[in-house]
Amino acid sequence: MEIGVATFADVAPGQTAAARLRDLVEEMSLADEVGLDVFGLGEHHRPDFAVSSPAVALAAGAERTSRIRLTSAVTVLSSDDPVRVFQDFATLDGLSGGRAEIMAGRGSFTESFPLFGQDLDDYDELFASKLELLLELRRSDRVTWSGPHRPPLDDAGVYPRPVQDPLPVWIAVGGTPQSVARAGLLGLPLMIAIIGGSPERFVPLVDLYRQAAERGGHDPAALAVGVNTHAYVADDGARAADEFFEPYTAMMTRIGRERGWPPMGRPQYDALRSARGALAVGAPEEVA
Amino acid sequence: MEIGVATFADVAPGQTAAARLRDLVEEMSLADEVGLDVFGLGEHHRPDFAVSSPAVALAAGAERTSRIRLTSAVTVLSSDDPVRVFQDFATLDGLSGGRAEIMAGRGSFTESFPLFGQDLDDYDELFASKLELLLELRRSDRVTWSGPHRPPLDDAGVYPRPVQDPLPVWIAVGGTPQSVARAGLLGLPLMIAIIGGSPERFVPLVDLYRQAAERGGHDPAALAVGVNTHAYVADDGARAADEFFEPYTAMMTRIGRERGWPPMGRPQYDALRSARGALAVGAPEEVA
Repeated sequence: MEIGVATFADVAPGQTAAARLRDLVEEMSLADEVGLDVFGLGEHHRPDFAVSSPAVALAAGAERTSRIRLTSAVTVLSSDDPVRVFQDFATLDGLSGGRAEIMAGRGSFTESFPLFGQDLDDYDELFASKLELLLELRRSDRVTWSGPHRPPLDDAGVYPRPVQDPLPVWIAVGGTPQSVARAGLLGLPLMIAIIGGSPERFVPLVDLYRQAAERGGHDPAALAVGVNTHAYVADDGARAADEFFEPYTAMMTRIGRERGWPPMGRPQYDALRSARGALAVGAPEEVA
Repeated sequence: MEIGVATFADVAPGQTAAARLRDLVEEMSLADEVGLDVFGLGEHHRPDFAVSSPAVALAAGAERTSRIRLTSAVTVLSSDDPVRVFQDFATLDGLSGGRAEIMAGRGSFTESFPLFGQDLDDYDELFASKLELLLELRRSDRVTWSGPHRPPLDDAGVYPRPVQDPLPVWIAVGGTPQSVARAGLLGLPLMIAIIGGSPERFVPLVDLYRQAAERGGHDPAALAVGVNTHAYVADDGARAADEFFEPYTAMMTRIGRERGWPPMGRPQYDALRSARGALAVGAPEEVA
């Protein structure tokens, strides 16, 4: 089992994006120092999150770390160009001595779709088609490909080549069975985001993933499954709960307003923190 | 006057792209240490050059430098998305404490056009239209824009915002009067690549640039003009000339083969090195 941290690099009130980016590099350095396995950075295109180019920010972190793996969490592949994504992360892989990973997702936030001219009606086809090309690019340095939503490639060379062969590509899902089955069929490692509700309801999804992997001719036991969940740890459990309450519920209420969720108060927060909940907040032994 | 280095990160025979990328970070660190003003990285999409994502490689350098400015040299803007370019360099600007610059060019190497689905017939229109959008993006964080070769933006937000306002954008030219005049009209700093022939023939271009700047309502005296030229310096001038001869002519012959140039031998090399030539090779006082 591996453990790491992922962040969306949310900007605190009054903080500049530049200050947040500098903090981020310090966080990557500390995560490496204390021995975490992976550091992930999400992609957003809004003023309240500092990272729209995960590979650029991770490259700064590569220079301050020596062991930790560096990943997007996630790359919104549907609204990006797989060729640029592959090049960015192959470059990061070279700079970091083979520590880069791509976590590809369809996107939970959707602001990137109008920004890059994609239609939300194509939400799934965009992802499927771009994932297919991304996987071709890591398979060979000369690629011939055609499909929707991206100009065709005719024996095109894509460089630099990564150190790792293949460059790791994870599929990140929010709970859509179709996405889980696709990851299994393709034999790609799966990352599940659990940001509400009971983690138990995700067990059937993991079963579905392993069945799909077998159907795709892959050994389910060899495929990694990960979970991303909101977390906050302090020496004392009650202190952790109190310290995290305000910033967490303010964030969830703010984002929830855009999505039609009710505001989050202490009862909902405490329920999420309970043993069956999705929030890993407490003392180290509680969270573990 | 400022002085710096720019490189295309050419990969030596037998070297991996990853090794070249690591060397590059050491070169950025050394350039900062010895007090150069700027370090530039070119964008290529071929196995003999290691950098297709200048901003990613520069971000690693940002972490190892404290004073030097970091720029693309050049970003092939015609085949890229100005929104991604702006985001990448705004991120670099935040990471580096306001040391990022973009040098935008139409591209001397053209392999990026088929790779990203652009038509070489649109060579100039692509650049003009994408430059217009790039300049809009640095002017405001909410942009409404429409034009050819890129989906329209309707009051779209583009983040993170850079530290520098405005983020420096240079225009890099190879000698096309039209490109020089555009840079002047827009009031953008001009970088001229001199990779052959006599530097004197570029003087009329600088005159044209300054006239165009005046026509555009800009003060020509306030606009920077730079020159990029191949250079190699050693303690002793003859040693510099001998050491640089083989790698330089091998490279120029190899690239020249693709472009129909004749192979380069010692006479042509020595002519380029002469006082009126375009090659800055020699002892420090000769080159200065």
